[in-house]
Amino acid sequence: MAGLRIALAQMNPVVGDLQGNVDHALDMYASAVDLGADLVVFGELAICGYPPEDLLLKPRFVADVDAALKRFVAGIGPCPAVIGTVTGTAGALRNSAAVVCDRSVVGVYDKRDLPNYAVFDERRYFRSGDAPLELFEVAGVRIAVSICEDMWGTIGPHAELAAGGAQVIVSINGSPYHHDKDTEREEMMAGRAGSLGCPVVYVNQVGGQDELVFDGGSFAVDATGHLVARSPLFVEDLRVIDIEVAERADEPTLPVIPVSRSAERARPAVSDPVAPAIDGDTELYEALVLGTRDYCRKNGFSDVVIGLSGGIDSTLVACVAVDALGSEHVHGVAMPSRYSSDHSLSDAHLLATNLGIDIRTISIEPAFSAFESMLEPSFAGREPGLTQENLQSRCRGQILMALSNEFGWMVLTTGNKSELAVGYFTIYGDSVGGYAVIKDLLKTRVYDLCRYVNARDGRKTVPLSVIDKPPSAELRPDQRDDQSLPPYDVLDRILSGYIEQDLTTEDLIEAGFDADIVRRVTRLVDIAEYKRRQAPLGVRVTRKAFGRDRRVPITNAYR
Amino acid sequence: MAGLRIALAQMNPVVGDLQGNVDHALDMYASAVDLGADLVVFGELAICGYPPEDLLLKPRFVADVDAALKRFVAGIGPCPAVIGTVTGTAGALRNSAAVVCDRSVVGVYDKRDLPNYAVFDERRYFRSGDAPLELFEVAGVRIAVSICEDMWGTIGPHAELAAGGAQVIVSINGSPYHHDKDTEREEMMAGRAGSLGCPVVYVNQVGGQDELVFDGGSFAVDATGHLVARSPLFVEDLRVIDIEVAERADEPTLPVIPVSRSAERARPAVSDPVAPAIDGDTELYEALVLGTRDYCRKNGFSDVVIGLSGGIDSTLVACVAVDALGSEHVHGVAMPSRYSSDHSLSDAHLLATNLGIDIRTISIEPAFSAFESMLEPSFAGREPGLTQENLQSRCRGQILMALSNEFGWMVLTTGNKSELAVGYFTIYGDSVGGYAVIKDLLKTRVYDLCRYVNARDGRKTVPLSVIDKPPSAELRPDQRDDQSLPPYDVLDRILSGYIEQDLTTEDLIEAGFDADIVRRVTRLVDIAEYKRRQAPLGVRVTRKAFGRDRRVPITNAYR
Repeated sequence: MAGLRIALAQMNPVVGDLQGNVDHALDMYASAVDLGADLVVFGELAICGYPPEDLLLKPRFVADVDAALKRFVAGIGPCPAVIGTVTGTAGALRNSAAVVCDRSVVGVYDKRDLPNYAVFDERRYFRSGDAPLELFEVAGVRIAVSICEDMWGTIGPHAELAAGGAQVIVSINGSPYHHDKDTEREEMMAGRAGSLGCPVVYVNQVGGQDELVFDGGSFAVDATGHLVARSPLFVEDLRVIDIEVAERADEPTLPVIPVSRSAERARPAVSDPVAPAIDGDTELYEALVLGTRDYCRKNGFSDVVIGLSGGIDSTLVACVAVDALGSEHVHGVAMPSRYSSDHSLSDAHLLATNLGIDIRTISIEPAFSAFESMLEPSFAGREPGLTQENLQSRCRGQILMALSNEFGWMVLTTGNKSELAVGYFTIYGDSVGGYAVIKDLLKTRVYDLCRYVNARDGRKTVPLSVIDKPPSAELRPDQRDDQSLPPYDVLDRILSGYIEQDLTTEDLIEAGFDADIVRRVTRLVDIAEYKRRQAPLGVRVTRKAFGRDRRVPITNAYR
Repeated sequence: MAGLRIALAQMNPVVGDLQGNVDHALDMYASAVDLGADLVVFGELAICGYPPEDLLLKPRFVADVDAALKRFVAGIGPCPAVIGTVTGTAGALRNSAAVVCDRSVVGVYDKRDLPNYAVFDERRYFRSGDAPLELFEVAGVRIAVSICEDMWGTIGPHAELAAGGAQVIVSINGSPYHHDKDTEREEMMAGRAGSLGCPVVYVNQVGGQDELVFDGGSFAVDATGHLVARSPLFVEDLRVIDIEVAERADEPTLPVIPVSRSAERARPAVSDPVAPAIDGDTELYEALVLGTRDYCRKNGFSDVVIGLSGGIDSTLVACVAVDALGSEHVHGVAMPSRYSSDHSLSDAHLLATNLGIDIRTISIEPAFSAFESMLEPSFAGREPGLTQENLQSRCRGQILMALSNEFGWMVLTTGNKSELAVGYFTIYGDSVGGYAVIKDLLKTRVYDLCRYVNARDGRKTVPLSVIDKPPSAELRPDQRDDQSLPPYDVLDRILSGYIEQDLTTEDLIEAGFDADIVRRVTRLVDIAEYKRRQAPLGVRVTRKAFGRDRRVPITNAYR
């Protein structure tokens, strides 16, 4: 058995920050060299950050990425690195991995299988790789390079690479999180390594980028599929590991490019290379934290403001915000009306105390009354109804936005996926904001995560009355959500089927749900599409979030 | 020369309305048969409407489209039809043209070149056609079938079809409008027909679908590229034309499927088959009208409400709305503040009189003052500024939305592309609404179209003072747009380069624009991305509109 010391450089790039990304990659490279690495592996498109989207349509951007790669290359010594970048020119771009050593690019692998589903649009930008495959001899070991999706298909370059003489496959990735995806990846790659009889080193990007959270969780599996190293989720990590590599008696049939000799070993590799797994609720919660933190940080916001209603949604958002930004950077506002209950206000204040955040109280009554008077000539003789409910919600939105404008605090939106789905929110009201932390969490999951926070903290950070009281928008006397909607456990199962599993109304009725309820719910989902289209971004945590993931027409007569 | 009588069925389908689309197609088919057609040609995906987007990810939807096609097929007699539909099953769908005759599908052509750029995502849904090509003998003439993009590439199935024995190529399309695209299409197809030596019949969808307007403008060119028929733009049209077809001495090398014999000719074809061309301003204006009308109609709105500021933007939107929906369905609201000028109010009322629409006046002062008092404790000791400007704009937005909620009128948003680009609008303020009529018109084009309206009407529908006064948001005393922005003729040229031509800041400076102005403008465009992402849809009329056409990250450090 030969050994190869590989550094997994799990980096958090900023899309478009070519200078900063290269600086950061070179810092990680230097640390890895200090640790005796034979090879340093970065993520997919690490030079420009993933996904750069339509920046790729600007020829100058592509030229600038190329210049940034050159700057990276100039910093690479005898220890080789693999890094994701863009190659080619406008109209014929490739999503590539550059193999770099001694201030030169010694080889390039172009991604072949370009994902164009879900949140991915890679065929909008790239052509598939079609150059002949080759191997790279690094420290006496023949490595193959692969990019993300190329390892997922049962048919793919991996079989040819392994059969052609690869002793290790290095896969670089920009693989966004959805719940439990880390397990899915490890299982997939373990199976792949076992069937190929070849170790796989998998390096993923980490960090938030608009709707996406990249969870990191880079890892390595040996030739039997056994997990031999794992980076933690949701943080940057530089992990230097020793991979055992089988000698192969057969001659490689693919061309082999000589790259480097073994590094001098100053010290042993990390002693415990497998970071512990974390449970499902922790994972989900930390995804929300990282998505929120990076959206704020990368867009230049230090502080956020949240409307605290005393309800479960704003409570969870406040918890996430405090973990993302620190309690001194989170500002609460209670905005009572004539219909607010006493417990709403007291719950909001208790939460603020528990979290150590400031809270101010601004009654919406003066503005709400003013609008009622202003509209009186138009509405004379009509009964108050939904219009007045929306007015209240929009007065709250105005206050939050005024505080945001004045103090530079980003408004965090508090709506959950169930509400967003059925349109149970006021456009320009409770939906205002820069980032919607829990927009991809169904209501039942919001409860789960509030209970998780209390369990984690070992105290009632979330007041029990917030968890126990029946949900209400408090926009008219004695309003409760279940007057307008089916119970959330039923609603969420229908929504999961309709949205995440792409079932239709008829499919759901056939699956045994009450026909009237299904028809009402799916109709609500359809007609709320125009409202969702104007809603803020938020963290994607499921297989199908509202946003770029789900591109349905607003004008749509299909029922 | 043989003759073939072809019906160009330029239809306005509704996405997802499978029943309605088939009913309508069968009605057009019956009319065409009455007119002695040998062949009736519909548009791309006419059964389900184009583009159905992620409805295609629901297996049941695909099955329902198939059932709808069967219902169409059951209505087709001895005169054959070509119609666009979806074939295949989930994961392996095709964008297809079905050739139908005598209650059977006699052949299917699958689209080969799937556009995945600009507003198109076809590789998200479809696989490329790979079945062997074939020809269809209709009334003694060998026709070939092609779908949209397949005719645009210099390399494509058209050469093989023509060389293989086609006497006419029938192209079915779902080709959305941008300015001057009709001319571009006719020129492209004339060149194609001339070089192939084969007539081309081009049938396009018409109608609005969310951001897109399909302009119709179906046409036919003979084997020399000469235009022999053209449907008008922006309306449904059934045009039965006689195409002259050259006899070919050579045997076809592609398989030929016998389909039908010549129809009985009850009467001559239309005597003047070429609808007149229209000029650029008319075309642009009519695109706005159709987009607005269809968005309202297909989403169930009869009436709209518009905030009339007396400015050029809301004026143009009101003109378009009246032409789209009729003056009795358009409602104006003037919402003065302490900073409004007298001429604003009088111009708004004069416009309403000219257009014959109702107008009400609701001062925003009571609500604005209420918010000022409510926020006083938070803002104590701070100078009024942008926050107060935004508050005024949001009070107006609230009034419009309250009227919308109460009376079911859709709010039409009045912002233009220049403002949307640089963020010169208030999110949740003047940007509220269901549809943004002029969101893809640069400010300079807004002026052009107001002058067009007056020229068309032969009177001052648009009051001259609206055109002549300097633009102002009137959110503080003596405010004028040019205090914050460069003059619109400069701004619009920079925006056109940065957005529509994908130039970068450095490119524009190198092109000779003032470096400081360019840096300021492009920075404004970048940081307004989060606001645009929450803006309503509106008609796309350029090669690159904000919306699905331009997918830039919000989190983006590239300058």
